[in-house]
Amino acid sequence: MNVYESMPTAQLDEAIRQLEEQAAQIKARGLSLDMARGKPSPEQTDLSRPMLDLLTSATELSDQGAPADNYGIPDGLPSARQLAADLLGVDAANVVVNGSSSLNLMHDAVCNAYTHGIGGNAPWCQQGEVKFLCPSPGYDRHFAVSARYGIKNVPIAMTPTGPDMDEVERLVQTDPTVKGIWCVPKYANPTGISYSAQTVRRFAALKPAAPDFRIFWDNAYIVHDLYDEGDELLNIFDALAEAGTTDLVYEFASTAKVTFPSSGMAFVAASPADIAELRAAFAVMRVSPEKLTQLMHVRFLPSVDAIKAHMRKHAAVVRPRFELVQRKLEEGLADAGVATWTKPRGGYFVSFDGPEGSAKRIVALMKELGVTLTGAGATWPYGQDPHDTNIRIAPTYPSLEQLGEALDVFVVATRLVSAKLAREARQA
Amino acid sequence: MNVYESMPTAQLDEAIRQLEEQAAQIKARGLSLDMARGKPSPEQTDLSRPMLDLLTSATELSDQGAPADNYGIPDGLPSARQLAADLLGVDAANVVVNGSSSLNLMHDAVCNAYTHGIGGNAPWCQQGEVKFLCPSPGYDRHFAVSARYGIKNVPIAMTPTGPDMDEVERLVQTDPTVKGIWCVPKYANPTGISYSAQTVRRFAALKPAAPDFRIFWDNAYIVHDLYDEGDELLNIFDALAEAGTTDLVYEFASTAKVTFPSSGMAFVAASPADIAELRAAFAVMRVSPEKLTQLMHVRFLPSVDAIKAHMRKHAAVVRPRFELVQRKLEEGLADAGVATWTKPRGGYFVSFDGPEGSAKRIVALMKELGVTLTGAGATWPYGQDPHDTNIRIAPTYPSLEQLGEALDVFVVATRLVSAKLAREARQA
Repeated sequence: MNVYESMPTAQLDEAIRQLEEQAAQIKARGLSLDMARGKPSPEQTDLSRPMLDLLTSATELSDQGAPADNYGIPDGLPSARQLAADLLGVDAANVVVNGSSSLNLMHDAVCNAYTHGIGGNAPWCQQGEVKFLCPSPGYDRHFAVSARYGIKNVPIAMTPTGPDMDEVERLVQTDPTVKGIWCVPKYANPTGISYSAQTVRRFAALKPAAPDFRIFWDNAYIVHDLYDEGDELLNIFDALAEAGTTDLVYEFASTAKVTFPSSGMAFVAASPADIAELRAAFAVMRVSPEKLTQLMHVRFLPSVDAIKAHMRKHAAVVRPRFELVQRKLEEGLADAGVATWTKPRGGYFVSFDGPEGSAKRIVALMKELGVTLTGAGATWPYGQDPHDTNIRIAPTYPSLEQLGEALDVFVVATRLVSAKLAREARQA
Repeated sequence: MNVYESMPTAQLDEAIRQLEEQAAQIKARGLSLDMARGKPSPEQTDLSRPMLDLLTSATELSDQGAPADNYGIPDGLPSARQLAADLLGVDAANVVVNGSSSLNLMHDAVCNAYTHGIGGNAPWCQQGEVKFLCPSPGYDRHFAVSARYGIKNVPIAMTPTGPDMDEVERLVQTDPTVKGIWCVPKYANPTGISYSAQTVRRFAALKPAAPDFRIFWDNAYIVHDLYDEGDELLNIFDALAEAGTTDLVYEFASTAKVTFPSSGMAFVAASPADIAELRAAFAVMRVSPEKLTQLMHVRFLPSVDAIKAHMRKHAAVVRPRFELVQRKLEEGLADAGVATWTKPRGGYFVSFDGPEGSAKRIVALMKELGVTLTGAGATWPYGQDPHDTNIRIAPTYPSLEQLGEALDVFVVATRLVSAKLAREARQA
């Protein structure tokens, strides 16, 4: 129950006056804090520094006979492909490791479908209106890729077990203009929820109306657990095999938030036919991958176990920040009944929902008070959050102390905007 | 004068018999040599090994305040942009350093024009037939990029001073469907010639019929001189300023053949409006560049002078190979009057022309004799060399000894095919 809505007006006015005073005091401090960006903190990137000692002038610059210091090996070094395959639980033959950015691979896959089509079907650019389903709140950069190609981004409700699968099935299976869906199946950006086994099975069993429909399965947070017992995500390719489905999923991941963002390895896995098609496109679009980076990575993290051990070090840095978010929001907002927020067990974000019509105002007020948040609406297609409630909280980058300060400001801002909304509703 | 054509028939038959005997002897040796690939030899890549000692766990991972170990800095590290700018002779504000492959940047620039258009003009994909001019012989991977987007590749004759500029001017200035031209202005692939100052000035003074025409100026061999006095190439952006032209050139280069291929820095320079447009496209297509690679590079090669000193070490390795090509061809073929070849002072290739209708047969015979060459025709759009004469010789990768053997075989193959062609012409 929203306490401000049920408060007598005089008391509400007094509450607003007090909150405005607190806000003025905060503003006077001239803070400059940032809770906007989903990027690792320096403490986290420092964990990978030992990797930089593994390539020296004396290192043998090859991997299983594949040269790392010259052109060639377009699908990536054998050990890099095997590591990616082991991580995703697929056959290395169906993996390409190329570039440092999985978003760039996703872009290229969408662009290839737009200009050249998938599986012999007409290019999307020649098919009139085409659509992507966008579980929302979701990842703004996904939505930006499809929007760039004039693809209509259709929001789909997110539930605690994944996207609203009734709606996904209805649209995918009846509308041949639906060509794709953006998924972050584990520790979703920004809700932090992981898709249930049933959700994954329903994805795998989809019978798309469009033969050139693909699921863009961005497994960005596959190893980004905060606790020893992480969320379990059913392997989508196992689910596909179980369902007897093929040519339905492009799966992406990278080491961006494992080692050094933008200096790691990105990879894509797909069915034999799909990966052959992507490989053929890459043969013109790309030259050979950054194999020295790959060599350094596979020597630093030679196995999935090594990656998991490394990620436990990340968790030790990140977990206190996520727990601080929960504590501060709980202590500061639980009694007000104005907001809900997710409690992820991994990933990079907490998704926060305030009262209807509050998000833009909270973000703007936070900016005034010296704290940058992700733009309100960013988590929805075209930046249009239909109820203007959602704010993405990114707790990883600031120090614990800065994060605590920023959250204290956030509590005041949320309360003030909520109280004002209640007051305005009364006037109207 | 082709000696085989002027030989009495009996003597020609005897010459063919002797050449076939030599070929049989070569075949019996079971050689396995490769003169196909324009890639540095291990001796060359080893020159850059000391670079790998420059990043360690103790290195400060930033450049002029820009973090190298995290997301951000989408246009590249400040020092990397400055180095690229100094190399190209342009303002660092008009340079983006991103990725390791300049071909990938070229692809993305073409793809962006195809899907989104240039300078507010309609996307090329909506303009019906569009064309690229392809100075030929040229670089097969350039031609493959434009061909991938259904762009019609139009061959343009190459002269010792660059492309046939009368033809370039005529087509660019009268045909609005001509949207681009592929240029390797210094040590062109494969002829090794450099464009004269007059050619560069004529490019800079072009008044294209299409407002969305761009010159794709791939300065791949900008510092790849074999001799202390390298070919001088007029700076295209200086020539543009002189001509009062703008928004006409995308210039590309990379460190691919300076340090480690596919693990270096690639960059693009353009006018302020053009680079802003590319940057906006990259903001969706790409994330941030491989800044640890950039950091390592700018520490290893902090200035153009450092690059030039490094390239003199490359020249010491490469020059003997190019000189061996000249000596072997001169000694083996000059008296036969059947072929011509270029004498580059830099770059990666020698362009060879045999008698009309000989190239495919020479390459096939070489294969039989155990020597792989670049496929005949590869240097022309769609692989169609109109006279079937051109063969690209790539002398850098094999050892001197292997190269010498391969060239000896090449002399025999060229003589044998030429003699047979002369005999067949007589029968016909």
